[in-house]
Amino acid sequence: MAWTTKITKVEPNHLVTRGYSQENLIGDIPFSHVIYLLLKGELPDTAHGKMIDAILTSCIDHGVTPPSCIAARTVASGGVPLPSAVAAGILAIGDAHGGAIEKGAQYFQEKVKQFNPTQQALDDYATELVTKSMKTHTRILGFGHRVHTNDPRTQKLFFLADKLGISGKHIELAKALEKALATAQERKLPINVDGAIAAIISDMGFDWRLGKAFFLLGRTAGLTAQVYEEQTTQKPMRKIFTTDVIYNGEPEH
Amino acid sequence: MAWTTKITKVEPNHLVTRGYSQENLIGDIPFSHVIYLLLKGELPDTAHGKMIDAILTSCIDHGVTPPSCIAARTVASGGVPLPSAVAAGILAIGDAHGGAIEKGAQYFQEKVKQFNPTQQALDDYATELVTKSMKTHTRILGFGHRVHTNDPRTQKLFFLADKLGISGKHIELAKALEKALATAQERKLPINVDGAIAAIISDMGFDWRLGKAFFLLGRTAGLTAQVYEEQTTQKPMRKIFTTDVIYNGEPEH
Amino acid sequence: MAWTTKITKVEPNHLVTRGYSQENLIGDIPFSHVIYLLLKGELPDTAHGKMIDAILTSCIDHGVTPPSCIAARTVASGGVPLPSAVAAGILAIGDAHGGAIEKGAQYFQEKVKQFNPTQQALDDYATELVTKSMKTHTRILGFGHRVHTNDPRTQKLFFLADKLGISGKHIELAKALEKALATAQERKLPINVDGAIAAIISDMGFDWRLGKAFFLLGRTAGLTAQVYEEQTTQKPMRKIFTTDVIYNGEPEH
Amino acid sequence: MAWTTKITKVEPNHLVTRGYSQENLIGDIPFSHVIYLLLKGELPDTAHGKMIDAILTSCIDHGVTPPSCIAARTVASGGVPLPSAVAAGILAIGDAHGGAIEKGAQYFQEKVKQFNPTQQALDDYATELVTKSMKTHTRILGFGHRVHTNDPRTQKLFFLADKLGISGKHIELAKALEKALATAQERKLPINVDGAIAAIISDMGFDWRLGKAFFLLGRTAGLTAQVYEEQTTQKPMRKIFTTDVIYNGEPEH
Repeated sequence: MAWTTKITKVEPNHLVTRGYSQENLIGDIPFSHVIYLLLKGELPDTAHGKMIDAILTSCIDHGVTPPSCIAARTVASGGVPLPSAVAAGILAIGDAHGGAIEKGAQYFQEKVKQFNPTQQALDDYATELVTKSMKTHTRILGFGHRVHTNDPRTQKLFFLADKLGISGKHIELAKALEKALATAQERKLPINVDGAIAAIISDMGFDWRLGKAFFLLGRTAGLTAQVYEEQTTQKPMRKIFTTDVIYNGEPEH
Repeated sequence: MAWTTKITKVEPNHLVTRGYSQENLIGDIPFSHVIYLLLKGELPDTAHGKMIDAILTSCIDHGVTPPSCIAARTVASGGVPLPSAVAAGILAIGDAHGGAIEKGAQYFQEKVKQFNPTQQALDDYATELVTKSMKTHTRILGFGHRVHTNDPRTQKLFFLADKLGISGKHIELAKALEKALATAQERKLPINVDGAIAAIISDMGFDWRLGKAFFLLGRTAGLTAQVYEEQTTQKPMRKIFTTDVIYNGEPEH
Repeated sequence: MAWTTKITKVEPNHLVTRGYSQENLIGDIPFSHVIYLLLKGELPDTAHGKMIDAILTSCIDHGVTPPSCIAARTVASGGVPLPSAVAAGILAIGDAHGGAIEKGAQYFQEKVKQFNPTQQALDDYATELVTKSMKTHTRILGFGHRVHTNDPRTQKLFFLADKLGISGKHIELAKALEKALATAQERKLPINVDGAIAAIISDMGFDWRLGKAFFLLGRTAGLTAQVYEEQTTQKPMRKIFTTDVIYNGEPEH
Repeated sequence: MAWTTKITKVEPNHLVTRGYSQENLIGDIPFSHVIYLLLKGELPDTAHGKMIDAILTSCIDHGVTPPSCIAARTVASGGVPLPSAVAAGILAIGDAHGGAIEKGAQYFQEKVKQFNPTQQALDDYATELVTKSMKTHTRILGFGHRVHTNDPRTQKLFFLADKLGISGKHIELAKALEKALATAQERKLPINVDGAIAAIISDMGFDWRLGKAFFLLGRTAGLTAQVYEEQTTQKPMRKIFTTDVIYNGEPEH
């Protein structure tokens, strides 16, 4: 019985990760490119390097109200080491929080594979998909945001994807779906940052199963800062919120 | 190289835990006594059995505002499996949340060991300890509560410890400290539920290093119910609190 | 905006959980029954009380090799507080580890609902389900174990369910499926402890969404003992395993 | 009651982090510099930017045997979402695993503050500190490694710190301590990668309380790759190790 791995070879005084000695990665390859190497098995070219960097930064932080931040800071307020609090924040990354990247990328990748451009215009295909999703009450993920109608992160990411020559079939489909959704629902339901990342990593050739990974890696930076702020500026066990709590359970026996 | 363990022997169709076949534990020994067996290496006598049961129940839940509950429910709202959300809640059990059991038990156990009743009355010893703690600005843990002045859990636990003949030197010291603290601070700072458990488990002969374990085992029951309630009655990513958030960082460059 | 909860009402010096003052639960109601109360919203009758107790004990520990135990002890060896290590163990409770309780209970509950005993014998129904599962390559969960062919926990749990008058349609279906599987696969694939619990909690009227909860609550007791053993008898960062590690990634550039 | 934060201001269609609009950070500032911004409150100059990048990469991965990796992969094998498995790995980052960065930086920062170069040569001061640590049996952390005698990561980090003009009093002290330790213990106990990072972040002006943060942020990249490899190439619940397990507990009653 042996345990095989393609990630790192450990020898005394020598560490090789994905074919590169760590000595040669440290300081010579940007950390964001090393992340790409770890996840994809090869170093990025210039365009992919810039894109992965932008994607990671686009995920860093959205203030104190997302579940991951509340969880991280609340756990920190229990008086635990920084990694335990950051880990609690990461646990909140789920189907409803960052999860649209995974589900969105899976959907885009499947639908791009099934699309036959010689038989149908992309806009018609997108309309068909939206109609079908409405009939089956299955939401297409990656559209709409509870705060932003025109998310600055989405705009910048798509701008970069175009400029770097990365935009391809998945981004096209995402934009066609945005148009079809607006028509079908009679209101704008813009691609959100999760949907944008889902489309871009698909055009970069990443497996949709890594969808949550990009969000996790970017957001961990913000969560670490949030936990550090909690630990150094707030009292332990502070009152986190003011909302009324109403007990509507069984009356006392 | 071998891994030794005193906890469970696994053989095909036979499991022995701490010397008892699991077949004989299941249904014949109360779960709370099995917890005692796991932590102490032997089954409890009648008094210890009733006491451990009471201690575990005294830790189950304190509503939605403690860090562990907010963390668990918030993580659940990210759309993750029940165990991930419960685990996040458990991560909040730290020095400031449930931690006074460990620190309190350590303190009580040390101070009982150092006490020489032939040389000094217990009340004088307690006064000395309180004076010293005030001089060195080191809080004696397990006293005072942000909600309760007369915690019903503390009362019931001490009542049971007396009734079951468990009360001993550690509970005596805790009560002497409570008196000395009230005198020194000119206001009541009653033993809280953490302090009560710290004293009782010390009189039961438990290692203070297990202090957080009792709280964790009891509270996990409440956290599981809280997460299930969140998952079945609330929407994912719901707004958790209404408190204003004020950005007081660098102005925009 | 208010936060409603049916679990606990917190007032100064008064705590009410599911309609019972905590003061009256502590020491008067067994901890296992309090767990039942938390999850189901009412105290168990005698039979259900004995059964939940047995179920929790049946989940306590399976030695050091399950993912939850390796994770908990390994994390403990990193030098972290007990709750962080126990939480890591709980995180391993997933679809492949304890998860068959949830999935199994969901399946049993659905299939019992769809069964019409006036039209078909239960054994024929089970054979039909097994045939269908083999055609669609979807495993029916809760059968077979990598160590036990005749799991002592399963035997005891079913014995108690019969004795306590709890056995009903879900256990009947589980046993019919076991028979049908043995015939179809020409080898015994006995109901495992997960499958047994799945069937029993279904006959007790629990929501299948709570499937992982019972395993989690029982196993947390064992994990806590495992972490304590690691922390008090082993060195930090000890070598956990001896298996060879083979790097089969890219050769060094 | 309001919640103040210096990290991120969230407005509709506008996000400001540490004084910079996220739109302007994405793609224009390297992700590693954004991490620096999050932790320090300002963007790095060229030297600090290169150094933080190198530090993060130096922490990415050390194969499958460290506690964080075993925990992450084992939890993944339980059949859970990627973030839960990565979080479990992060939980293992503790006093014995990555913790020497925090403890080492705290020590270096304290000792540099207490050092008076007009009264004593640095080498004499280091010898004095080593002698004192040996007398009090308190290990100076950040020296020695269980695999490497000449860690390539340490060499590269110190080379860069020199080249970038970052090396200062803390690195000097660390190197003086290495010399003094070698003399006192009659064997080389070289600065390990934790010790090197501890000294370098101290010379960069970081709070030692952030010690575990750098390791966490770098290692999370490796853990994510490890979890993805586990999920896509291994079977759930696979046997992780071959080591014998010996039950040395109570004999069966």
